[in-house]
Amino acid sequence: METEKLRRNNERIDDLQRCGLKILQDPERFCFGMDAVLLSGFTGPRVGERLLDLGTGTGILPLLLSAKTDCKKLIGLEIQPESADMARRSVALNGLTERIEIVTGDIREAGALFAPASFDSITCNPPYMPAGEGLVNPEDAKAIARHEICCTFRDVAQVSAKLLRPGGKLYLVHRPQRLAEILTEMSQYRIEPKRLRMVHPYADREPNMILIEGVSGGGRGMKVEKPLIVWEKQGVYTEEVAQLYGF
Amino acid sequence: METEKLRRNNERIDDLQRCGLKILQDPERFCFGMDAVLLSGFTGPRVGERLLDLGTGTGILPLLLSAKTDCKKLIGLEIQPESADMARRSVALNGLTERIEIVTGDIREAGALFAPASFDSITCNPPYMPAGEGLVNPEDAKAIARHEICCTFRDVAQVSAKLLRPGGKLYLVHRPQRLAEILTEMSQYRIEPKRLRMVHPYADREPNMILIEGVSGGGRGMKVEKPLIVWEKQGVYTEEVAQLYGF
Repeated sequence: METEKLRRNNERIDDLQRCGLKILQDPERFCFGMDAVLLSGFTGPRVGERLLDLGTGTGILPLLLSAKTDCKKLIGLEIQPESADMARRSVALNGLTERIEIVTGDIREAGALFAPASFDSITCNPPYMPAGEGLVNPEDAKAIARHEICCTFRDVAQVSAKLLRPGGKLYLVHRPQRLAEILTEMSQYRIEPKRLRMVHPYADREPNMILIEGVSGGGRGMKVEKPLIVWEKQGVYTEEVAQLYGF
Repeated sequence: METEKLRRNNERIDDLQRCGLKILQDPERFCFGMDAVLLSGFTGPRVGERLLDLGTGTGILPLLLSAKTDCKKLIGLEIQPESADMARRSVALNGLTERIEIVTGDIREAGALFAPASFDSITCNPPYMPAGEGLVNPEDAKAIARHEICCTFRDVAQVSAKLLRPGGKLYLVHRPQRLAEILTEMSQYRIEPKRLRMVHPYADREPNMILIEGVSGGGRGMKVEKPLIVWEKQGVYTEEVAQLYGF
């Protein structure tokens, strides 16, 4: 069976609950989290656009966005060859090799891999923790995905400024603890923060994720949207989040 | 009667619902809003500290903070002589001339009016609108309070950096539209944003005010707190806001 031929070792095939999409994941390495799903819902539909996902991991964002948007071309950049290989096989599994391309490479060198101003949108679900802070996962794959070992947020802002066309958009998911730093770096690279949405586990709790949209060369002034609440009560998603998951 | 002697022309005497405090206000000029009340609740109790309120208007913040905190000395700086005069008379009305001092002067020159690093805390409820944006109120008093005619946010950040002791705190209330700019300016003047609270009119609405605490010379990393909701339902404050008003 074609599907089974694409699966390796401990990998499992997960259903993305959207248009029949499937993804290969290895629990020993890194599985996508709610962050990627929320980020996919935060980007608008982008008819005919070229989109780049920085640090795509197993390709969750290009896969979800192939279903949720009308992007013409989605490119995922991933530094870890094993993850990039899994992402490529997931793309094949879904018959999406025409629309999605997975490139193995370093975010810090993305400015040389792609033409300047060649993307309409960039998405990024970057490592949240500064290198050297908190517990660093001894297994490399997880450490690189969680800690700023291979790239800092400044690298993301810098390369996005280079690769976005004027007016192009950067969509990010990150942690509230880093908010000031992220908005400052974005402003410094002239990707003006225009939209911010806080994600709260419950309505009366502090946020644990932030969703940010910046516009390359945009003018000052931003909109903070109403909170995105994840859980209605324990074990029950709010309607908004349930819809993002496609239930 | 002593109280009546301090009142002029169209001024009215409002009860601040806290420790019997009263304030003189002139509806033709500028009356304090919910912003000042929320900001007074966002600052911690500061035993024995020296606090400066930049752009104090009719002195609402020093008055409220004299009751809510253990500050030893509260100084309000106000550029408009008429407002400063009203603030001074309100201070006298409450018998607080020992603790509260109102200085007539320009925020942009505050670095020369006070000694460097001479304050433990600074509060500011600055004009929200950039000069030249939106409808500028033809009556000067209101325009200066609402538009950045006499000082920009950069002036506030710059002078605060000069006047705060290392580790001293800046407390601000502002508009969500300016969030990125404010966090960026604070970072640039090394007043690291450490706490952010969004104020929402209702739980399911976007925020219309932000409360920010920055620490002079503080390290990176901030906390976004749970939302502050103003209205339980139309005409009924949430318990938290009712308590801030002292009802």
